[in-house]
Amino acid sequence: MLKKLLPVIVFIVCAQASRAQQRARDYGIRIGVMAPGKWNAITDVPGVKVGHTTIVRGDSIRTGVTAVLPYDGNIFQQKVPAAVFTGNGFGKLAGTTQVQELGNLETPIVLTNTLGVATAMNAVIEYTLKQPGNENVQSVNAVVGETNDGYLNDIRGQHVTKNDVLAAIQQANSGAVKEGCVGAGTGTVCFGFKGGIGTASRALPVNLGGYTVGVLVQSNFGGVLQIDGVPVGEEWGKFAFSNQLLNNVDGSCMIVVATNAPLDARNLQRLAKRAFMGLAKTGGIASNGSGDYVIAFSTADSLRIPHNYKQPLQQVSLLQNEETSPLFMAAIEATEEAIINSLFTATNTTGHKGHTVEALPIDKVIALFKKYNRLQK
Amino acid sequence: MLKKLLPVIVFIVCAQASRAQQRARDYGIRIGVMAPGKWNAITDVPGVKVGHTTIVRGDSIRTGVTAVLPYDGNIFQQKVPAAVFTGNGFGKLAGTTQVQELGNLETPIVLTNTLGVATAMNAVIEYTLKQPGNENVQSVNAVVGETNDGYLNDIRGQHVTKNDVLAAIQQANSGAVKEGCVGAGTGTVCFGFKGGIGTASRALPVNLGGYTVGVLVQSNFGGVLQIDGVPVGEEWGKFAFSNQLLNNVDGSCMIVVATNAPLDARNLQRLAKRAFMGLAKTGGIASNGSGDYVIAFSTADSLRIPHNYKQPLQQVSLLQNEETSPLFMAAIEATEEAIINSLFTATNTTGHKGHTVEALPIDKVIALFKKYNRLQK
Amino acid sequence: MLKKLLPVIVFIVCAQASRAQQRARDYGIRIGVMAPGKWNAITDVPGVKVGHTTIVRGDSIRTGVTAVLPYDGNIFQQKVPAAVFTGNGFGKLAGTTQVQELGNLETPIVLTNTLGVATAMNAVIEYTLKQPGNENVQSVNAVVGETNDGYLNDIRGQHVTKNDVLAAIQQANSGAVKEGCVGAGTGTVCFGFKGGIGTASRALPVNLGGYTVGVLVQSNFGGVLQIDGVPVGEEWGKFAFSNQLLNNVDGSCMIVVATNAPLDARNLQRLAKRAFMGLAKTGGIASNGSGDYVIAFSTADSLRIPHNYKQPLQQVSLLQNEETSPLFMAAIEATEEAIINSLFTATNTTGHKGHTVEALPIDKVIALFKKYNRLQK
Amino acid sequence: MLKKLLPVIVFIVCAQASRAQQRARDYGIRIGVMAPGKWNAITDVPGVKVGHTTIVRGDSIRTGVTAVLPYDGNIFQQKVPAAVFTGNGFGKLAGTTQVQELGNLETPIVLTNTLGVATAMNAVIEYTLKQPGNENVQSVNAVVGETNDGYLNDIRGQHVTKNDVLAAIQQANSGAVKEGCVGAGTGTVCFGFKGGIGTASRALPVNLGGYTVGVLVQSNFGGVLQIDGVPVGEEWGKFAFSNQLLNNVDGSCMIVVATNAPLDARNLQRLAKRAFMGLAKTGGIASNGSGDYVIAFSTADSLRIPHNYKQPLQQVSLLQNEETSPLFMAAIEATEEAIINSLFTATNTTGHKGHTVEALPIDKVIALFKKYNRLQK
Repeated sequence: MLKKLLPVIVFIVCAQASRAQQRARDYGIRIGVMAPGKWNAITDVPGVKVGHTTIVRGDSIRTGVTAVLPYDGNIFQQKVPAAVFTGNGFGKLAGTTQVQELGNLETPIVLTNTLGVATAMNAVIEYTLKQPGNENVQSVNAVVGETNDGYLNDIRGQHVTKNDVLAAIQQANSGAVKEGCVGAGTGTVCFGFKGGIGTASRALPVNLGGYTVGVLVQSNFGGVLQIDGVPVGEEWGKFAFSNQLLNNVDGSCMIVVATNAPLDARNLQRLAKRAFMGLAKTGGIASNGSGDYVIAFSTADSLRIPHNYKQPLQQVSLLQNEETSPLFMAAIEATEEAIINSLFTATNTTGHKGHTVEALPIDKVIALFKKYNRLQK
Repeated sequence: MLKKLLPVIVFIVCAQASRAQQRARDYGIRIGVMAPGKWNAITDVPGVKVGHTTIVRGDSIRTGVTAVLPYDGNIFQQKVPAAVFTGNGFGKLAGTTQVQELGNLETPIVLTNTLGVATAMNAVIEYTLKQPGNENVQSVNAVVGETNDGYLNDIRGQHVTKNDVLAAIQQANSGAVKEGCVGAGTGTVCFGFKGGIGTASRALPVNLGGYTVGVLVQSNFGGVLQIDGVPVGEEWGKFAFSNQLLNNVDGSCMIVVATNAPLDARNLQRLAKRAFMGLAKTGGIASNGSGDYVIAFSTADSLRIPHNYKQPLQQVSLLQNEETSPLFMAAIEATEEAIINSLFTATNTTGHKGHTVEALPIDKVIALFKKYNRLQK
Repeated sequence: MLKKLLPVIVFIVCAQASRAQQRARDYGIRIGVMAPGKWNAITDVPGVKVGHTTIVRGDSIRTGVTAVLPYDGNIFQQKVPAAVFTGNGFGKLAGTTQVQELGNLETPIVLTNTLGVATAMNAVIEYTLKQPGNENVQSVNAVVGETNDGYLNDIRGQHVTKNDVLAAIQQANSGAVKEGCVGAGTGTVCFGFKGGIGTASRALPVNLGGYTVGVLVQSNFGGVLQIDGVPVGEEWGKFAFSNQLLNNVDGSCMIVVATNAPLDARNLQRLAKRAFMGLAKTGGIASNGSGDYVIAFSTADSLRIPHNYKQPLQQVSLLQNEETSPLFMAAIEATEEAIINSLFTATNTTGHKGHTVEALPIDKVIALFKKYNRLQK
Repeated sequence: MLKKLLPVIVFIVCAQASRAQQRARDYGIRIGVMAPGKWNAITDVPGVKVGHTTIVRGDSIRTGVTAVLPYDGNIFQQKVPAAVFTGNGFGKLAGTTQVQELGNLETPIVLTNTLGVATAMNAVIEYTLKQPGNENVQSVNAVVGETNDGYLNDIRGQHVTKNDVLAAIQQANSGAVKEGCVGAGTGTVCFGFKGGIGTASRALPVNLGGYTVGVLVQSNFGGVLQIDGVPVGEEWGKFAFSNQLLNNVDGSCMIVVATNAPLDARNLQRLAKRAFMGLAKTGGIASNGSGDYVIAFSTADSLRIPHNYKQPLQQVSLLQNEETSPLFMAAIEATEEAIINSLFTATNTTGHKGHTVEALPIDKVIALFKKYNRLQK
């Protein structure tokens, strides 16, 4: 019965979350020098969809699932070029080696908690096997990432179900993306504050190609928080290896990068690496216990890889190496802002064993920005 | 009810398989120049155990699970150094990035079929969470490999259960290892013949260090079969891209390499790469669709990595780089022989959709060895 | 004759450079939360030495050589553990694959210009072959990095000689390190300003291990300059793909990381990756044309690798994985500060084809820091 | 004066070498199941050229240079897709990281001895800088590989000059390729016999794409020699860690793979990895001291990468992943045969310190093939 009620619960939680969803930019914080897309979200890359299942039950269950779909259709039959960069590999990202070997992605990307990866893989497999046209498929490379929400969530209880994952995939949407304590970000912690899902994008001007780069993160890591260069963590004496957080530096960050620029797997790998630079700009340190992964894909039409092809040769249109630098810069900026957005939109959360993690105190952040004369009107 | 009967079925199948278990060496085929260990098996590395769950049910289910345990104990609490080499990454080996990042293995290694990986991961997670001493564990890097047995097995039915995996782990033993159509090798196909599980080892003489290298494979790949250099595939006109096998070259090979030599993760990665060379010597071509992975670990006592350590510094005793070459040679030989053993011990199998795969016709192989004057008495 | 005069010229240039050597910290700019070592230089790691040959001749020659020695002695006979991380591989760093395979460094690290790498390699080879004790050496893995100083220097003229390289090695010293327009940094450009050599260090408190991490950079890259989070590039409208610098984003950064922490090659590789995060914090974007490499080594005594060893097993004392995070943070901070130091200490330079690159206008930087209330007294 | 005489000496040596050039296939040894191209050489890939400079002087100088040109023209201006695979990285292959990052090759590939790499790089740089059309080039990624010929050659004397390298490039030709003791193979040792340069090719049938794969090797490594599966090393008791060769297992193998198949860098990397499998089939073990590298490139027209491009998008025609397997098989076969050819064509050589290395005794090999009934008429 519980499962039938779940969508209702989800709705309530999301509604609460969305009420408060003021993002960094809404406060006059402008990260970087490039302009965001319409939604300032990964969904600015045409076709990309995001879905969440938020699982909040009782005192101890604070977890969820976030799905990113490169496009609306049968991804297995028309794969997209993709690549993975491992910032720090203390994590369980499933599907890595096949993405690297073949240079493509054949399923939605699903994010969840560390001990939920296998269940999410089974959901992605089921989703793929059942999709019309896939009746003969016998091999599915499910791409599932995770961070560890065990401080706020009863992670050992393994509360994520296949249906939770399927729901996130099926409810995926374009347009504005819910952030903060939703989906796979429900129980995460970032820089000692409540982390979560965040997103941002950059739209390149026409003279730099006119492409869009969108990023979505599941933030759950530590370090020395900087917001647009303002030394928040240092100012508040709250950072890795300061007294307060000495034991809480570890964690992880899953980063998904989408672009409509026609990049092959090699250049997508390079793009993915730049997202890790964006993480660095927030003050992340990729600590030993961190699972910091970036998966990047391109939605460019000519680069779709048919599962059953008719011709041994594929005609593709690829961006020259030397045209990639603006995209690299966009990936850095969008990742930095996506992480900051995850902090701005997350809310105070109490969960497993009564642990409480406070949201980033935005008024105090704004006060700092004023002190440092950094707010843009 | 079916599940309760399963152990009985397993027993029968194993009994059948074991009756016929004559291995390449039993016929006078001597691969390489180094001597095997007592069992000529991965279990010659002291402490290593192997367990199988063979799943044969009805007309269509021909699959299973094979577990390799580095030692008998709590692997999570006392991890072993480990590394992965990817020969060709069209596969779903779980756990790769963390093994590479941290240089260690914290669970048994489980092999199964492609669509069973996630279920096996959940089993390994459950096994680890429940092990005494792991009550506070919130993150488990389950290492699960696979090959695709979908030609003989109803793989889409996902018939491997958590209990099947746990049984393989729990029944793991030292000593002689069952090979052929057992465990994860129940439904595999190799060079167009019935493949399966195979194992072999090499024991270095004292002047080369006296260490043991043991290998276990799950063989499921194609190419141009050579047995100890004898051109079997070519002679029989049965090889990749010959008429007979044109569509059946793909497949995979999971290879597990164990040694008691004190190698750190870097040198284990190098050792793993040599196992791939052993695969090459059997005529494997690592085709596009192959998931050819090697995972290597060391059982050396001083290299155990405590999950909870008392001292920030660990005193370890490591083999010099320049002492590794004999181990490399041993890994090549043992892998070659393990693959050939998987073919010698596998038996005719009919499964899914009435597909039949014949065992390697050993009498014909022996005839070839006689023609080529290659049998050793 | 020219060559005999060279040391004199070098002296003059260095003297000029050193007069002005006020570093970021001297102005009240405090990057990060950790304390630097005594010299705030790579030479704070005991034993590490740095030497420069600055080559400034006529109107067009503005180049040089910088050498980093892990310790004073025969590095070939007693190698040090080492690793390389490639941030962006558009560069010619020599020696990479052997360092990665064997996990060690057997020569001084030499930095120079792009077209001088081969000559520098020959110098390092000669240096090694001639060193007492190396009479039978027949293979030398010279590690030589570079950035492209072709805007200010007549790089096609290949003006770096073997003697220049040998001089840098032989004159290497501990203690304070000359920065800015010296050695391999004589002709480099960074964020559109004069770049050069920079260095910094972090000394961990005893409770975090008490180790030192030192970094030296050859800065020659672009992006959107941030100094300790202050948005200098954005404020001045001078950044990659702004009108001013549209064609000048490329370039490179060579980063050398030294530590006395007992890290093996695997953990040194991880440490190296964190230096790349420090580069990110300065606003570097690792553009397509960048050769951004980090080479990290450990000076820990027990980890020295004897070229001719007596025992096949080496007893070593290694830091646990989980103790590495403070070192990671130190590498990030020291790299960020080293790059900023390279900008603070470099001076206006006119060279090849009359090209002029201005030094970072420090008064304007300080004004910005005041505007943003970020100067620490 | 010596240098002026050199071409004459080269001519004599080459003439001698070519007299004896009977290759494995000429004796009825047929490696693999695929057909070679017209020349059974890397030059079967249309456009590819090979040039040698053989340096034999006095008692102690036995070395040389071999150059492989992807095509006749300005490679810098029209680069070719390329990739490197490192089998074992104890070697000094220059240019690796840039080839991997950008996925292309911009110079001829030059092979020489270990201590000649830097000089060869300077020659390649000079060649490139002086080529018409390259007047503004300021960065050249010279790709230079090596093996160590120090047993037969006075390698410490560094006798390879820039002119030697330029001569090899300039004299490069299509058609039959001289093998054995020529060029970079003049002083190498393989399986305890005289090694050298070897080449072979495979021409795929039309139904498998009709492409050609050509391989050239510089063989200088050890292991347990197998020729087309015949256990030569074992039979003769001459193999790594047998008494005879205990100290001589190390060495290296440089492998160059060319194809006209339209493979991008990612698939070329996979192709390169298969060449390493061909090395394994000869009995190579990639010992600790080996520098076993493969560099692969494609000559496909649509994949040329213009240094100065007009359009940010390039239209290319790429082979599907799933079409690569026959090419993989071809690379394995051609590499195996190229190595065997290097042994068949090399001749007895006496050099440095009076060291003598005998050629493979072909009559004894043929006797073995007869014993094992393996000669094909």
